[in-house]
Amino acid sequence: MQNPVRQSSHQITLLSDFGLKDVYVGVMKGVIAQITPNVPVIDLTHQIPPQNVLAGRFALLNAYPYFPRPTVHIAVVDPGVGSQRRAVAVEFPQGVVVAPDNGLVSGICQFESPLAAVELNNPDYWRTLSPSRTFHGRDIFSPVGAYLATGVPLQEVGTSIDPQTLVKLDLAPVTETAEGIRGTVQYIDYFGNVITNIPAACLTGKSWSVELPQQTLPQSETYSDRTPGHPVALIGSHGWLEIAVNEGNAATQLNLTYNSSVLVRW
Amino acid sequence: MQNPVRQSSHQITLLSDFGLKDVYVGVMKGVIAQITPNVPVIDLTHQIPPQNVLAGRFALLNAYPYFPRPTVHIAVVDPGVGSQRRAVAVEFPQGVVVAPDNGLVSGICQFESPLAAVELNNPDYWRTLSPSRTFHGRDIFSPVGAYLATGVPLQEVGTSIDPQTLVKLDLAPVTETAEGIRGTVQYIDYFGNVITNIPAACLTGKSWSVELPQQTLPQSETYSDRTPGHPVALIGSHGWLEIAVNEGNAATQLNLTYNSSVLVRW
Amino acid sequence: MQNPVRQSSHQITLLSDFGLKDVYVGVMKGVIAQITPNVPVIDLTHQIPPQNVLAGRFALLNAYPYFPRPTVHIAVVDPGVGSQRRAVAVEFPQGVVVAPDNGLVSGICQFESPLAAVELNNPDYWRTLSPSRTFHGRDIFSPVGAYLATGVPLQEVGTSIDPQTLVKLDLAPVTETAEGIRGTVQYIDYFGNVITNIPAACLTGKSWSVELPQQTLPQSETYSDRTPGHPVALIGSHGWLEIAVNEGNAATQLNLTYNSSVLVRW
Repeated sequence: MQNPVRQSSHQITLLSDFGLKDVYVGVMKGVIAQITPNVPVIDLTHQIPPQNVLAGRFALLNAYPYFPRPTVHIAVVDPGVGSQRRAVAVEFPQGVVVAPDNGLVSGICQFESPLAAVELNNPDYWRTLSPSRTFHGRDIFSPVGAYLATGVPLQEVGTSIDPQTLVKLDLAPVTETAEGIRGTVQYIDYFGNVITNIPAACLTGKSWSVELPQQTLPQSETYSDRTPGHPVALIGSHGWLEIAVNEGNAATQLNLTYNSSVLVRW
Repeated sequence: MQNPVRQSSHQITLLSDFGLKDVYVGVMKGVIAQITPNVPVIDLTHQIPPQNVLAGRFALLNAYPYFPRPTVHIAVVDPGVGSQRRAVAVEFPQGVVVAPDNGLVSGICQFESPLAAVELNNPDYWRTLSPSRTFHGRDIFSPVGAYLATGVPLQEVGTSIDPQTLVKLDLAPVTETAEGIRGTVQYIDYFGNVITNIPAACLTGKSWSVELPQQTLPQSETYSDRTPGHPVALIGSHGWLEIAVNEGNAATQLNLTYNSSVLVRW
Repeated sequence: MQNPVRQSSHQITLLSDFGLKDVYVGVMKGVIAQITPNVPVIDLTHQIPPQNVLAGRFALLNAYPYFPRPTVHIAVVDPGVGSQRRAVAVEFPQGVVVAPDNGLVSGICQFESPLAAVELNNPDYWRTLSPSRTFHGRDIFSPVGAYLATGVPLQEVGTSIDPQTLVKLDLAPVTETAEGIRGTVQYIDYFGNVITNIPAACLTGKSWSVELPQQTLPQSETYSDRTPGHPVALIGSHGWLEIAVNEGNAATQLNLTYNSSVLVRW
């Protein structure tokens, strides 16, 4: 069987909470270009809310399936940078994720078993022997990711660790009762669409509605099922129950936020 | 004569109102990379005001002429996603636009006659036979655009339609009287520059001023014709009459917005 | 010795205050693609605060060292566009910067001597003989940068000028007294981290603290040295003294802004 990590990668993706105001992301791309100028670098997003590992976990989980293997994903939402948290590379069937070990990768782990994981402790693949205490994205994650994209084996860039020891960051579980399902808001997108952690599979083939404190939202199929300004509940493109307002902002209008509880009734 | 659509394209551009906070745009790039990893993908913008087809139409119209043929432009500002609105690909002399049929393409159509158009109803070129009801950018527009960029003929991706049937989204017309020209604000840019629909051609070689409720702006040639903080009226880089404030925000300062009326006096 | 400008470049970077709302940046990429479609274009940032040449100077200076030579950097923060300010290309050991001559390049000049400089007055390398008065980024800087990236020699694109005549934009100098060092805030980043102009070299091996009007910040090594919400003073990844708040916004919380004075005490 071929070892997917030894192949060179078709592309590198970047995900961070660095924003686009500064040159942090550009600098990471410069560091990558020094190592592998011909691998395209694709931005997943750099506007994860600062240090919101939960949002980063969701974003990475939702982008991962759409990239051809082998892709290297460099993900940096890293409130613990410079502390003792580990830096890791985790190999999955479709690609490798390079990230701090703070739960960022745990979303993908819910759906796919890691094939292998290493702690990034081989400074030969860092940008410098004295990495900045505050910018491992530049000094560790980007160069390691770039070297992995050139085909350097995973085991070269650090010591193998048990994938079971990776930090987990899990949401409040979805609970099913006789009357319905209770879940949690796991992400609010740019449009203000509210994405819960209730998977489509729990709802398909059934008839349901979403009960909010102020109102009940009937099951819809598309944003335009209702007139502009009115909320809809539907299976979103991510595959989870989603609450949206046609041409509006559901989070603001319905006063929903991260970790809000959402009740679906049969 | 060569058929421009059968050539593979030099690049794909993306335009949307998806913002850059989420991974929607990154996911579209992943889908494209699965089909044609070597065609560069260029972002036109993803910050069209949510569901503002008029702004998207303006942005697409203004970017189109600067790209070498053949380029594939994927444009997704799509308030009617999941409803009965058509999804289309429209071939112009310099490239193909893949978009919902809601007027997004009608700006280019004002200046260039479409060579051909198809409705995107061949699911062989979709990402999945069951596209999401809310994210055709990922499931229809991106894969179709990527296949077109590899040289798939336009007629392969759907049924031919008469370009005359494409939805038009036109601005209030520019009217000329003895005393001057009346036009409309068609776009407000990031700087707060106010772009009218009065074309340069109506003004060249004449002497004119812009009459606003509070003040009259003399004809200027460049932002720095006046000291910082003062408004100027000039022919903008887009080729339309533009109102700007040197080192300031004209829209806010002069209380102008989309569809505001603007009067030019000789 | 090889002439770095005659080599074709590995990549072009773009830096501007154009924002990402409009198609200005996309249009520049279209213009570049017309000339050299195969050179990757990397965004450093387009969110320099509008017309803030000082911030642009800092951003360019901090990105430049991370790019392999030869890179072409196109930098456009240009409040004087259309006025008599010069447009220039300045060659440094690692690459060429194409920019208005308003101090944008002067940050790099503090650390590296320019090898050569030209005024961009050869319209053969412009997009058009009649460039827009308001968008030299599209009509002059992008095409000239693209041609330089293809290997056109610097002297082809304009008349040689003495690098000493380039506009300087320098910060208030760092002053050292018996009790400590006084410097200035030179940049505020997306996180609200406050970057001073006091270089690491002045502080290494010493024990120091930062005295602010309301409080004294002890020397730290990483953001997470203190609990969330508390300010830290450390050597930032840029190599200057930086003031940050762990999981917070230092500029807002400590009321620091561009040009605020900062005192380090031994």
